[in-house]
Amino acid sequence: MADFRMGEPTAMAMALRAASARGIPFGPNPRVGCTIIDAAGKIVAVGRHRGAGTPHAEVDALTEAGDRAHGGTAVVTLEPCTHTGRTGPCTEALLAAGVRRVVIGMPDPNPVAAGGARLLEEAGVDVVVLGEDDVTFGPQLALLNRGWTHGLVHGRPYVVWKTATTLDGRVAAADLTSRWITGDAARAEVHALRARIDTMLVGTGTALTDDPALTARDTDDELLPGQPLRVVMGRRPLPATARLLTDGAAETLTLTTRDPHEALATLFERGQREVLLEGGPTLAAAFLAAGLIDEVIAYVAPVLLGAGPHLLGDLGIGTLGDARRLSLQSVTRLEHDVRLVLRPYRRLPYLPDGREWFPANSLSDLDPELGSV
Amino acid sequence: MADFRMGEPTAMAMALRAASARGIPFGPNPRVGCTIIDAAGKIVAVGRHRGAGTPHAEVDALTEAGDRAHGGTAVVTLEPCTHTGRTGPCTEALLAAGVRRVVIGMPDPNPVAAGGARLLEEAGVDVVVLGEDDVTFGPQLALLNRGWTHGLVHGRPYVVWKTATTLDGRVAAADLTSRWITGDAARAEVHALRARIDTMLVGTGTALTDDPALTARDTDDELLPGQPLRVVMGRRPLPATARLLTDGAAETLTLTTRDPHEALATLFERGQREVLLEGGPTLAAAFLAAGLIDEVIAYVAPVLLGAGPHLLGDLGIGTLGDARRLSLQSVTRLEHDVRLVLRPYRRLPYLPDGREWFPANSLSDLDPELGSV
Repeated sequence: MADFRMGEPTAMAMALRAASARGIPFGPNPRVGCTIIDAAGKIVAVGRHRGAGTPHAEVDALTEAGDRAHGGTAVVTLEPCTHTGRTGPCTEALLAAGVRRVVIGMPDPNPVAAGGARLLEEAGVDVVVLGEDDVTFGPQLALLNRGWTHGLVHGRPYVVWKTATTLDGRVAAADLTSRWITGDAARAEVHALRARIDTMLVGTGTALTDDPALTARDTDDELLPGQPLRVVMGRRPLPATARLLTDGAAETLTLTTRDPHEALATLFERGQREVLLEGGPTLAAAFLAAGLIDEVIAYVAPVLLGAGPHLLGDLGIGTLGDARRLSLQSVTRLEHDVRLVLRPYRRLPYLPDGREWFPANSLSDLDPELGSV
Repeated sequence: MADFRMGEPTAMAMALRAASARGIPFGPNPRVGCTIIDAAGKIVAVGRHRGAGTPHAEVDALTEAGDRAHGGTAVVTLEPCTHTGRTGPCTEALLAAGVRRVVIGMPDPNPVAAGGARLLEEAGVDVVVLGEDDVTFGPQLALLNRGWTHGLVHGRPYVVWKTATTLDGRVAAADLTSRWITGDAARAEVHALRARIDTMLVGTGTALTDDPALTARDTDDELLPGQPLRVVMGRRPLPATARLLTDGAAETLTLTTRDPHEALATLFERGQREVLLEGGPTLAAAFLAAGLIDEVIAYVAPVLLGAGPHLLGDLGIGTLGDARRLSLQSVTRLEHDVRLVLRPYRRLPYLPDGREWFPANSLSDLDPELGSV
């Protein structure tokens, strides 16, 4: 258990909420929130980072708090930085404001910026670091900057493949109608998911077949604030009338490549950190074959079609022993549909007879092995 | 709540256990168990019906109890019969033995045999009938003779379609290897399921491709007692070396028809009441198209193949509005796999846009509408 003092859990919850508010951009900078508690234990300011070139969350909060920060506590979702980028280091600002205690959500995984906690401690500040194992805040803290952290470690965006299929693995009927295979609850979830990432990716095949809008909407069908970038990849040209190019609902980027590595490199360079793959069977197969899928969110509807396009194109798998086996993270009923969350196994050889592929009895034992397919 | 007296729930549990013991045959007669409690409240006998031509459960128990039944209670899973078939009516036997009270699990749905409860009451016996809504015993009582009851009402066996697929809806890899898509827990369940029905049905296609044994085995791979009948239907001849014909593990019946109605009529005539459909995509499509599937037990493995045979052959469905939509009864995680239990909707028109197919917000509201696909 973290060594919280009165008011600090509330302050961390407020900092998390400030950091993850809609409209706070994803991208090459982390999303950070900071709450200032004065010496008397009263919350006096909440700050957030609003994107590249704007003040960091600590500075934003300290500016609001003014003198009231003196002798107080800063509760911040990410370890304060030590480097001077487009803004000055936050550790200096915290020390200058006379803060006596700093509660940190996640340590900074960026080697250029890390070391803030140690530096503050050396200056006599009382420092607590929660980390992703914190019972209360760990999961939200880890999710807050998942794409940014993944980018620092792997040098490419985090890729979530979203699927919606019938029980017999079809993504549409024979005439390509696919609205709606899943029910209201699953569709609402997909829109919420879109609002939580910064990039939606489809292939030109899907763009030509479905003419999708690829927007994040609320249950009243209104556009949510902070629409993700829409990306179409492939070599087939889209008609000038395509909704993705004409509806103006969000920015659309066209990538004339079929290579998933190349597409992700371009997106990463552009600052994109979390990609929701919503493409068709060909694009999904290309990403799977390239080992570039980090998570699968699969909606399965209690529907049988017996015909129609498949979820997944040819992976070159000829026999069951070579099948791609995923780790089932959770199973949830959503009204009449089922949601499976899956993650790939990493580094795990699949035995030829397909029988002994479980490396452990407990799923939690598997987690260190999780990686990309 | 049923008006139980001391010892009667225990007696009903024992009667249920006696009725559903392995080796008690399914078929044209119901499975029945009966426990006798003497006048002092002590359980003195447990009887069961062992198949056509043998004594009914009540007579079996009364024989064991002898004089001790006088002034006592009979706890029986099914309403005692009033007709003289190959054995005399059980109501008479109960009255002759001087039983003062009878606790009945399910009323008899068979019009020829029903009326036992009323006849006993008219003779001055204290009668309690639980029915399938009984909180404690209802579900087990309903399951005990599901096939027999279904047969009385619909004149054909109850058909359960068991499926095991990858997340992308494949039942085997491109080279037709399919052992094992699902894990140990799902496989163990399928064997337990086979031991709970009286007939397993595959098409000649599956018999030729997989050369299955179609046996119910325990976790040590030993044959369980009371193997179900194995049935192969279709027009393609099996080789004399097929395991189904040579391994002697259980009886195998060959039906040279492709018509599901004809196959079920033959099986019903022969006394079969619960069919587990384990066939391939062609057979499944034929049964679905004929509206002859009463329940689907679908095992989904967290596996991707991208190629290989599908779960389901062509149903002639061209557009999503015509899709077969099922009611999701339950979703359960089984180690690394997922089990979905589904039932078809009956009498429900599917709207062309596929949006308004839910007849109610609550699943429990749907139950009266459940029937066969």
